[in-house]
Formats: sequence, C-alpha cells, structure tokens
Amino acid sequence: MVDFPFALRSAATDVERELGRLLPKSDELEAPLYEAMRYAVLGGGKRLRPFLVLAVSDLFNVAREQSLRVAAAVELVHTYSLVHDDLPCMDDDDLRRGRETVHVKYDEATAVLVGDALLTLAFEVLADERTTADPKTRADLIRALARAAGGHGMVGGQMLDIMAEELAPDEGAVVRLQRLKTGEMIAFSAESGAILAHAGTSARHSLRMYAHDLGLAFQITDDLLDVDGEAAEVGKTVGKDAVAGKATFVALLGEDAARKRAGMLASQAKAHLEPFGQSADSLRALCDFVITRRN
Amino acid sequence: MVDFPFALRSAATDVERELGRLLPKSDELEAPLYEAMRYAVLGGGKRLRPFLVLAVSDLFNVAREQSLRVAAAVELVHTYSLVHDDLPCMDDDDLRRGRETVHVKYDEATAVLVGDALLTLAFEVLADERTTADPKTRADLIRALARAAGGHGMVGGQMLDIMAEELAPDEGAVVRLQRLKTGEMIAFSAESGAILAHAGTSARHSLRMYAHDLGLAFQITDDLLDVDGEAAEVGKTVGKDAVAGKATFVALLGEDAARKRAGMLASQAKAHLEPFGQSADSLRALCDFVITRRN
Repeated sequence: MVDFPFALRSAATDVERELGRLLPKSDELEAPLYEAMRYAVLGGGKRLRPFLVLAVSDLFNVAREQSLRVAAAVELVHTYSLVHDDLPCMDDDDLRRGRETVHVKYDEATAVLVGDALLTLAFEVLADERTTADPKTRADLIRALARAAGGHGMVGGQMLDIMAEELAPDEGAVVRLQRLKTGEMIAFSAESGAILAHAGTSARHSLRMYAHDLGLAFQITDDLLDVDGEAAEVGKTVGKDAVAGKATFVALLGEDAARKRAGMLASQAKAHLEPFGQSADSLRALCDFVITRRN
Repeated sequence: MVDFPFALRSAATDVERELGRLLPKSDELEAPLYEAMRYAVLGGGKRLRPFLVLAVSDLFNVAREQSLRVAAAVELVHTYSLVHDDLPCMDDDDLRRGRETVHVKYDEATAVLVGDALLTLAFEVLADERTTADPKTRADLIRALARAAGGHGMVGGQMLDIMAEELAPDEGAVVRLQRLKTGEMIAFSAESGAILAHAGTSARHSLRMYAHDLGLAFQITDDLLDVDGEAAEVGKTVGKDAVAGKATFVALLGEDAARKRAGMLASQAKAHLEPFGQSADSLRALCDFVITRRN
C-alpha cells in the first residue's frame, strides 16, 4: 500500500527545496525580478507534475539528484504558464494557490517578465550537465519539453482556450484543447523519467498512454471543480468557465457523465501500468488522487 | 572592401527564408497562433543579430545550414522580446518595424502567447540534431542562450528598464541595464558561431570583447535615435525614453558626448578583431553600420 498523501507531500518538499536552489538570488539591481520569481514558484501547489517525473524516474532507478532537476524544470514551465494565464488579458485571475496572483502582488509588467524568465530558466536547468552527464539525453529532454510546452503543445492549447467561444462545442475540439493545454506537459512529465533512463520504446509507449488518460482525467476533474468547488478550497477563482462560455467536458457531457468519464479514464490509465508491476503503485495511486482531489 | 548593405540584405533574406521554414504551419484549430507568430517574425527588420551569428560562423567556416539555424533561433528570441516589450503593460508601443505591433494587429492575449511560443521554439530549434550532430555543442548553445536571454540577461535588463525611473541615474546603472537588456544577446550572437566551431578560448574571448563594445555602441545609437530620429524612418515610436524619464546614455552624457562614446566603442570593438585579419572585415563594417544607422 502506498501512503499517497505522504508520498505527494514528501515529493513536493523535495521539489520545493530544489526549486529554491535553482531560482536566482542576487543583490543586483534586478533583484526585484528574482523576488517575484520566487513568489510565483515557491507558493506551494500540489506539484503533481514533478511528482509524476519523480515517480516514473523511480521506476527506472534514476538518481534522485537528476530527476529532481527535471521535476523542477517541469514545475518552472508549469508556473510560468499559470503566471501568464492569470494576466488580465488572459484569464484575469486574482487568486492562485490561495494567494494573490503575480500581477496583483506586483504588477502586470513584472508578471510578464517573471513568466519569461521562468520558462528560460527551465531550459537552462535541463541544458546543465548536472542534470545528466550525457549531452544527448539533455538535448532529447530539451527538445521533448519544447515540443510539449510550445505552439504545438501547451501554448497552442492556451490559444484554443482564449478562442474557446469561437470553437465548435464538440468533443473533438474539447479533447484537442485539453490534450494541448494540459495533456502534452503531463505526457512530458511521465516520459522524461524514461528519457533520463534511456528506457525502451515499449516502456515509453506505455507511459505515454498512461499519461494521456491521466491528463484527460485530470482536466475533466478540473472542469468539475470549476463547477462545484469552493474557491477557498480550490485556491483559485471558480465558476469562470461557464461565465466565459467555454467548451469544457462538463458543458459538453453534463456533470454526471463527466464524472463517470474521469473514473473510466483513471482505470484505463492504470491498465497501461501493468508491465511495471508493483513498482508502479504510486503512479496508480496518482490516478485515484487526480479524480478525487478537491483542489 | 565589404559591400556591407548588400551583405546585410543578403543575410537577412537567408534568415527570413530559414525562419519561414522553422515557424509552424497547420490547418489545425490553433492555426491563428501560428499566423500571428509569422506576422511577428517575418515582418522584416534589419536582422543584425542573425547577421552577427552568420559573420562569426563564417570566420570559422561553419556550414551555412548550421549557422542559419542558430541565427534563426537568435532572431526568434529577439522577436519574442519585442512582442512582449511592446505590450500595453510594458512599453505600450503600437508601431514596430513600420507595422502594427502584435497586440494591436491581434490582441494582447495573442501577443503574450506569440512571445511564449517563439521563445520555446528557439530552444526546440537548437536542440534539434539538424543544428549540429554533436549533442554536447547543442547543449552548450542552449545553456549559453538561456543565460543570455533569461533573468541574468535580457529579461533582467527588461526588469531594470521598467524600473528605470526608480534607478539612480548613474553610469553604473545605465551600463548594467544596457548590458543585460541588449548586450548579453549580442554577445551570444557573436559567441554562438565560435561555440558551433569549437573555437579556442582566446578567439572566444576576443569575440566576447568585440560584442561587448558593439552592444554598447548599438544601444547608445538606439538612445540617440529615440531622441533625434523620425518615427517613419526608425519604424517605431520615438521620444519615449525622455517621456518615461528613463536613464539612458543620452540623458546621462548629453547627445554630443553620447555620439562620441558610440564612435569610440566602435573603434574599440574593431581593435578586438585584430587576430582574425581580413576575414573579419564584415564584422568591422558592422561596427560602422551600427553607429551610423538611421533606424
């Protein structure tokens, strides 16, 4: 049995410490930028994506000092996307992880620059030989992260999100939006441990399928929390999707069917872990957590 | 004798073609993002930084298909910085390269995402084995670019720029602002050809010194154009620094002394090219161009 809440908290603590080490500190004139970067990144959060990086890396016995750097890079990219997504010209959110968003705490210009600097730092971290001595593996990680995060991945998904009112509210569009917006980065999180370990194509394929189903289950649950969650519990503004007329799974399928779909996807995700036996138990527990979480 | 205007135009044409190949195209729902990325990048511009990448690479006989990819990556980063810098919450500019800025042509959210996607694409391009078969060189390029572009480089400089009114208007602050904001990326442009070619430390040191002086000369000229240029000629709004009370070289030294300083820096930059003999003539011509340009 995996004590999942403990494992998640423990991973989050390790990742937080690593992020604290990687984020710049300085007495120079530009120090206010670094302070705002730290505010954005070190504000808690579940650290689900880093957990995924670490748990998959553990499957292959990757050294923790390596997987922690990749986990931190993933969280830097995730945080940058939240900071930009929260901007007034995007989702215009004041609340994130239960605290003021970066542009509220500082100002909009600082929030733009914080996001830019965090994204850039993620690539700097991966390119560093401390991530792994093998430069081919570093280049592979960087290419995979850039694809997952860029125009064909997360940023493309954000574009679909701001176009959401213009999109046909059909399942194809909603699935594509969610695959790009959250799915590709979740897939990278799962695959990166396998890249670090030079795992075979069959293992990588299983992990990709797992991440695909997990990502959709995660997003459907996010949509459900936007409908029935409490802001204080969720840690961000809720009820915004409906107001914005966004084509979500909940809008498309209704709450009950969406909840069932998330459960089905979680089971399906676990089925892809069969080749890994018991050592993948924490990845299984993550599936249950993702669909039952309240924030 | 180098026909510099011809050499610059010719390099710009090659880089434009390369950028056209590297920018994403698609019929997918997110195509509007790609269209806006193309608008931002393919709108002309002098392409000085890519020229620098190509000219230094030529010193070491780097294959053109490699240096063009690095030149394109540099221009992607430069363009992303312009798109974000032009945002209403930053410099609030409507005009860039003689055309509407991205947030005016499209909207602010699109401009944020265009910048994010361009920055990410730059790293994807460098991580690709087509840039160079040697993965160590790719990782070195990526690390150097990330350092030049991130919080310790260009983004840090942008932060100083938005804080400019709070900064002490002394030469130390102005030099630091300009070194970070434009100098580091110009230095990377000069060094990247040497990285591609595995040039020795002495050559790299000379190029770094050259780029340092060139970058300052470039920035002082930029400040001068903001004071005495015509918007139609410069291609962007002028007179904004004084309105914003920004600590520029011109504000600090006065126009005449600033002009003299730029000339002195250009001579100094050329002196660093001595070890390269005649093959560096286009890099010398670049110095003259940088301080005599009208846009």
